[in-house]
This record gives sequence, C-alpha cells and structure tokens, in this order.
Amino acid sequence: MSEVQSVGVIGLGSMGMGAAKSCVRAGLDVYGFDLNPEALEELGSYGAKAVSTNAVEYAKELDAVLVLVVNARQVNTVLFETGLAAALKPNTPVMVSATISAEDAKQIENKLAEHRLVMLDAPVSGGSAKAESGEMTVMASGATSTFEALQPVLDATAAKVYNIGEAIGLGATVKVIHQLLAGVHIAAGAEAMALAARAGIPLDLMYDVVTNAAGNSWMFENRMKHVVDGDYTPNSMVDIFVKDLNLVSDTAQDLKFPTPLSSAALNMFVSASNAGFGQEDDSAVIKIFDGIELPGVEK
Amino acid sequence: MSEVQSVGVIGLGSMGMGAAKSCVRAGLDVYGFDLNPEALEELGSYGAKAVSTNAVEYAKELDAVLVLVVNARQVNTVLFETGLAAALKPNTPVMVSATISAEDAKQIENKLAEHRLVMLDAPVSGGSAKAESGEMTVMASGATSTFEALQPVLDATAAKVYNIGEAIGLGATVKVIHQLLAGVHIAAGAEAMALAARAGIPLDLMYDVVTNAAGNSWMFENRMKHVVDGDYTPNSMVDIFVKDLNLVSDTAQDLKFPTPLSSAALNMFVSASNAGFGQEDDSAVIKIFDGIELPGVEK
Repeated sequence: MSEVQSVGVIGLGSMGMGAAKSCVRAGLDVYGFDLNPEALEELGSYGAKAVSTNAVEYAKELDAVLVLVVNARQVNTVLFETGLAAALKPNTPVMVSATISAEDAKQIENKLAEHRLVMLDAPVSGGSAKAESGEMTVMASGATSTFEALQPVLDATAAKVYNIGEAIGLGATVKVIHQLLAGVHIAAGAEAMALAARAGIPLDLMYDVVTNAAGNSWMFENRMKHVVDGDYTPNSMVDIFVKDLNLVSDTAQDLKFPTPLSSAALNMFVSASNAGFGQEDDSAVIKIFDGIELPGVEK
Repeated sequence: MSEVQSVGVIGLGSMGMGAAKSCVRAGLDVYGFDLNPEALEELGSYGAKAVSTNAVEYAKELDAVLVLVVNARQVNTVLFETGLAAALKPNTPVMVSATISAEDAKQIENKLAEHRLVMLDAPVSGGSAKAESGEMTVMASGATSTFEALQPVLDATAAKVYNIGEAIGLGATVKVIHQLLAGVHIAAGAEAMALAARAGIPLDLMYDVVTNAAGNSWMFENRMKHVVDGDYTPNSMVDIFVKDLNLVSDTAQDLKFPTPLSSAALNMFVSASNAGFGQEDDSAVIKIFDGIELPGVEK
C-alpha cells in the first residue's frame, strides 16, 4: 500500500477541527466533513483540500479516514448509513477515535471488514488545545500494518501514541477506564467542595490547599476552578460523563466486575442531568448538593 | 509573651521526626518525646536538647509544643492523661497537627483552655520527605496571637501555611476534606487498575496512559506505582484511610451532608482491612477485587 497522502476527517468539533488543522499543517490533503457549515468554512479557509456535508462524494480521493464524532451511534451513521464505507477504496485504514465501548469497537470493525476496510481502535485524549497543536494522546489497538498505514496521520495529530495490542477493543477499553478516573475525580472534587461550602470553608482557600497537596488531581485543578469562579460555561458537558460513565458500566457488566466508585459517580452525573444541568460544564455536578451557597449560583 | 526558643515535639513518627529535625536545623532548642527508644536516639544524635519518653519532666523548659501523633485519642493521652497540660507554663501555644475531626479539635481546645493554654488547630500534609526538609503544608486555624507565637516553629517546619480563620475546627475540617479527596483517589485508582487487569490491559501501560492524561491524580501516580511494582510495603497504611474516611463520615454526619463517593471509598478500605490488608500500603485496597491477577500478588 502506498503512503497515505490524503485524509478525510469526519466530525469537526473541538477535537476533530484541531486534528484536521494539524493534518493541514503537516502537508496532508485534508477533506473535512461535518453538518455544521461554520466548521466547514473555518477548515476550508485554513487550507483544506475540500469540505462538505457529504463524505461519499470524495470517497475515492481518500487514502485514510479519521472519525472524531461523539459516540458509537454517530460512528455507525457516518460510516455505514451514509454509504461511505461501501464507497471507500479497499484497504483504506479507518481510525475510529470516538469514545465507545469495546463491544461497539468490535462490531464496527466487523462491518468495516465486510467492505474490505481496516480499523484502528484509536480513542484520543488531551482536550481541544492539544488537538489544535497536533499533540493529542492516542491509545490505540489494531494490526501493525494499520498503525503503519496511518503513521502520517498519527504523526500529524499526536504527541504520544500508545500501542496497546492487536485486538480491536483494547484501545476503547483503555479510554473507558481512563474516563472512569476522570469522571470519578470530577465528582469527588464536587463532593469535597460542596462539603467545604457546607462547613464554612472559603472555596478559593480549599482549592488553593488541595492544588498544593496530595489530594490534587488533574480534573480537580481544572474543573473546580470553574466552581470557584462560578462559571459553568461548558468545556465538556455533564451529559458527556453520563455517556462515558455509562460506557464504564457497560464494560464492567460485560466483564462481570464491580465498580463501586464509578457507579456512585454515574448516579451523581445522572442526577445533575435530571435536575436540568446536562448541558452545563461537567463541574455543574456540584449543583446536586442542596443546602449550600456556591459562587455565582442563585438558588 | 517572649519569642519561642524551645519546642517540645511529641510523636516522632515519620512526620514528627522530620519536623523535629527541621526545628533543630532552624536553631530552636528541641525536646523530643516518643515511646520508641530508637526514635529518641535518632533525634538525640541529630542535636536535640533532650529526648525522653516522659514530656512532663521537661514541661517548664518548653515555650511551645508541637503534637504530631496519629489520632485524637493519642492527642488526649499525651496532653492530658500524662499531666503535661497541667505542667506547662501558662499561655504556652500548643500546635495540634494530628488529623482529627473538628469536634475533637474543639474539645481539645476547651481542655487546653482549662489549663490556660492556647491551641493552633494545625493539621499538616506533604509526606515524610517534606517533613524532613522542613517544607510541610500546614492548614491552620486559631487566634492571630497564637499564629504569631508559633511563627518560629512554622518557619522551621512549613513551606506553606494556610490561615483558614480564627475558629478552632476549621483547620481540622480542611484536612479532613483533603483526605476525602486523597482516599477517593486511591480507591478510584485501585478500581480502575483492577478493571484494567480484568480486561487484559497490561497495568504498566494503563499506568503510563493515565499519568500522561487528564485522568491522573497525585495519588494515582504515587500509589498505583506500588500496584504496578507489586510492592505493598506500607508508606501509609490501609487502616489510616479507614480512620481518615471515618473522620469524613463523622464530619458529614455532624453537618447532615451526603458524601456518596467517600462513603463508597470507606467501604472499600474497610473491606480491605477486614480481609487482612489493614497494615499493608493503602494501595492494597485493590486486593478486595477478586478474579484478577496482580503483579507480585499470589492468590
């Protein structure tokens, strides 16, 4: 197989847009696909070869595909319901970077194989800033030949690529377990800050103590700042962790394994979503606690 | 009151020994008290003015007292049951740095006041290395005059002193809430690594991914290394978090406040203690999960 020179990026949200721009800067021929016309215009003016709401019309131009949509349902829609998989050249490598379950990853691999396409199970992390700078973390599994085929795309978009093994599903599982920690840490931060508020501890001082001590986490430092500032403008929403901790729950159920902490954290995020905070920043999970006053939040 | 020149350090465990040595280096006259003769010998040869199992005989020499024992019961024993509080000079400032509840802190303050002694509610964190280098983090509450009186001791032992307010109990509460986060993060790390083991993910790889991504915490990075190495030599034991998460539970109960995550984490540490792992490193909480193979652990 010849070297990948063109790549179709499907899903131009905060991660996909950054990855697509990083591919443009690396000299790849980038085709961007999304339903949002503003995103298409942004990538078009950044130097994409073409942008469109319809990937199928460019299928024969693509040496590789990077899918950066939100969930497994969207992956299935953009690859199969649109007819894209049927239209791609045989052996085109498809890098699936949505956060999905191992079971979903395996089903998608099987459906791609029916079209003689190969898959890299390649969830990403790092946030939009790292995507923008081409420094995502990729936790991937798949055949060595698929890693090799996608090397130009990985070089363009990732600072660190973990090769977890050959079996599709391993990449998805590592990402899901990572999200277990991320979600529990946000919920634990909220529980601690809510208890501090109830005890009359100034939240800015509590934040300062924790971030300078062994109780700190990446998520506490990043998200509880939003609580201190009373700013729940969403970077990542409560409903994203409803989804991701449900993936943890699905994974645990498949393995018949107990997850007491992430189960409790899931219940907290679902309670927050049910109370009307699903579209707010995920730190808004703290709003499930009654009887406290929070900066910038009217009761 | 004249400047503090002599300090009695009660409790020469890993934190107390480091604090006492830091006071020696700062030029204070240090009196060290513990029941362990090896600890007394170590501090004596480091340059303490005197060391003893009995603090009362040196009570009149002490301008200040630093109590660094494990829990509230020990604080009560060393200050009151021995007769030390009755023997100290009036207005001697007593810095109580055990991890205790706000209610215990207030009761200890009241009993010290009966002996005309003043208290700084001053829990510490940072671990033994920071204690050794005189760079503990102190989260303290008390009268401004008590902070001022203890300034030479704080300067000698702490890199950072948080003044949380005047009311005794605030310092204790901030430490307890900090421990909520520390305990939940250890338990969450164990849950994530156990699930990874069950899913067939190599634990060293899972550790590497998490410590380079947004799912990281101070405790994950520090404690899950022990799991990867299969080394459960105790730095801090499972039973310490049984104690500290019970303090979280007591605090929440006093405030009638729910703590779903730390309640679940407490149950995990209690289960580990009940299974015989109470004296192992706190990362041994992962051993409550059946059906997995862990590095260095025979089933």
